Amino acid sequence: TTYKIAAIPGDGIGVDITDAASQVLNTLAQAHGGFSFDFMTFDWSSKKYLERGWYMPEDGMAQLKKHDAIYFGAVGWPDVPDHISLWSLILPIRTSMNQYVNVRPTRILKSVTAPLAQLQKNRKDLDWVIIRENSEGEYAGQGGITHGHGPNAIATELAIFTRVGIERIMRFAFETAKLRPRKKLTMVTKSNAQRHGMVLWDKVFYEVAKEYEGVVEWDKMLVDAMTVRMVNKPESMDTIVATNLHADILSDLAAALAGSIGIAPSSNLDPTRSCPSMFEPIHGSAPDIAGKGIANPVGAFWSAAEMVRWLGKGDLDKTADQLMEAIENVSENGIRTRDMGGESSTKEVTDAVCKEIEAI
Amino acid sequence: TTYKIAAIPGDGIGVDITDAASQVLNTLAQAHGGFSFDFMTFDWSSKKYLERGWYMPEDGMAQLKKHDAIYFGAVGWPDVPDHISLWSLILPIRTSMNQYVNVRPTRILKSVTAPLAQLQKNRKDLDWVIIRENSEGEYAGQGGITHGHGPNAIATELAIFTRVGIERIMRFAFETAKLRPRKKLTMVTKSNAQRHGMVLWDKVFYEVAKEYEGVVEWDKMLVDAMTVRMVNKPESMDTIVATNLHADILSDLAAALAGSIGIAPSSNLDPTRSCPSMFEPIHGSAPDIAGKGIANPVGAFWSAAEMVRWLGKGDLDKTADQLMEAIENVSENGIRTRDMGGESSTKEVTDAVCKEIEAI
Ligand SMILES: CC(C)[C@H](C(=O)O)[C@@H](O)C(=O)O
Ligand SMILES: CC(C)[C@H](C(=O)O)[C@@H](O)C(=O)O
Repeated sequence: TTYKIAAIPGDGIGVDITDAASQVLNTLAQAHGGFSFDFMTFDWSSKKYLERGWYMPEDGMAQLKKHDAIYFGAVGWPDVPDHISLWSLILPIRTSMNQYVNVRPTRILKSVTAPLAQLQKNRKDLDWVIIRENSEGEYAGQGGITHGHGPNAIATELAIFTRVGIERIMRFAFETAKLRPRKKLTMVTKSNAQRHGMVLWDKVFYEVAKEYEGVVEWDKMLVDAMTVRMVNKPESMDTIVATNLHADILSDLAAALAGSIGIAPSSNLDPTRSCPSMFEPIHGSAPDIAGKGIANPVGAFWSAAEMVRWLGKGDLDKTADQLMEAIENVSENGIRTRDMGGESSTKEVTDAVCKEIEAI
Repeated sequence: TTYKIAAIPGDGIGVDITDAASQVLNTLAQAHGGFSFDFMTFDWSSKKYLERGWYMPEDGMAQLKKHDAIYFGAVGWPDVPDHISLWSLILPIRTSMNQYVNVRPTRILKSVTAPLAQLQKNRKDLDWVIIRENSEGEYAGQGGITHGHGPNAIATELAIFTRVGIERIMRFAFETAKLRPRKKLTMVTKSNAQRHGMVLWDKVFYEVAKEYEGVVEWDKMLVDAMTVRMVNKPESMDTIVATNLHADILSDLAAALAGSIGIAPSSNLDPTRSCPSMFEPIHGSAPDIAGKGIANPVGAFWSAAEMVRWLGKGDLDKTADQLMEAIENVSENGIRTRDMGGESSTKEVTDAVCKEIEAI
């Protein structure tokens, strides 16, 4: 099988780590022998936008649709307002490609020192999968500004929750929890203060929960109290489901608690498989270290492993695990970038991971 | 001077800790000699609501307005949906009483063990004041549900940002930062994804910032990345300003990182002083330990200290500091509730703090 991958390196360190990821993915395919990748690179970036005035061409989505998966680096650059760059690239891809689920596995990789004292002693206490609603909620994109330039300016953000949207994310979350050893789901909400949309969120959750009675254990948290529980009782949670914005915040916190934002992966999935899914590290474009060759490629590799898992539909799980093992071995051998306390360059880590894959 | 205080114990441990706070406040006034408190207690609670069908009487706000300050325990009870209880009591008070600022000081009290390894070594690295916009944004209360009972249900939450609302909170934040030793303000936003209201938030921030050039140093963070910075570089921040929802989440995280949600205070301020301001610990009603006499009263005492500070308009700062000193001494002497690793009851901690106040 040859998997067609649309690679969008984007901005800043997105370029460095997408290169690194494709090198690792090719090595993995070669070592395995049973499949290969056909990468097509799309130069949709802020730099190009400043040159030519657009991020994606008009048929951009149609081009992406011809691929089996999308690999995304990062977007965001100081010379372009963030809301322009993001709403021209990553956010419309998520919604146009029906990627209504964003999955963010979080655990403390071997050799990583986590910042919480408890987790320095008990690394395994933190083992979460955060399921983020990825198509509506606070990222629906609706709202506007009136009297924008005067003293009476008023601006709105409209969060939209639909029964269809909530039901499908809850079902995905329960299915994920069901397959995990602990079979446990924590649902996050803010329905005490947000009394319209979030109340529907709760209601649909309770309905779907009934279908999983006796199969998946669940509890419910307010988003503010959730941060406290993540810090104090990481071992009490497993699968977590939250809205687009809440999960955005909680998953960054999760990555920090797991030791580094530079290693955290995310998968934007269309569970119906009618569109290609998209895989991206959760870190940003990091303009301050862009082009210096020192970006941490681990989040990119972990995202690549999740892409392999998704493409294989169960057949390549072992291969994805091998990539994860290679990442952890290299890190344990001290070959790490600076953000992880090491001194290695992106290239050194990448080459070491490739060598490790060949050796496994 | 006699300060008229409207006390609303509310639900669960709100009752225990409001009792404790009034005992401590009376002791403080007696020890000082120059002022006293006249408490009027309002039995507005979920229990009463279940009996009589309402939380506040129709003239509730008018009654509150006759006081110099409001002391609030907690609201929320399992038998009443949270969005009913909160929108019947705490949230309308905040908006009706023009309390457009919520202030949440956060530091690690002596004798508290914080969960981050870095902060166990360097307690003083965490010293923040979180300024929360308290009157609009995601808590504007607008939105609704259509087709609520069918498969096409759609619900919305409308966040509203006005220039007036943003400008006044930014100005308060800069004024707060200006008086702090480090003179530093971190502004939090999510204007990359929330491209209408949050863009106005940013714009007004930049305008107000110009007035403080050379006086207050500032930087800007996205709310998701902010959680990472709070975990990794607590020492890099001082005063923080954020929206109603963002600051709600970040201040709970802050309290957890500072060692306990049970000790964190909050002040709901009307800086124009046309209405009474309200003081409440940030913890909730904790139904699981309500009535057991084991609730941690420290958050309530710290909130009481902030109330004294506010009422004194600068004249009672030393008295408020004495209360804080008493709290810390008692805690250092090992008289702590369970959530802080001790074995003392609410009453034991309260009596010890009173004794300490008399001794100082
Ligand atoms: C880049 C940005 C729009 C994005 C988001 O907020 O979704 C990022 O923070 C993420 O978590 O993927
Ligand atoms: C009780 C609830 C409405 C409240 C809020 O969300 O504002 C609480 O979490 C707080 O932080 O004061």
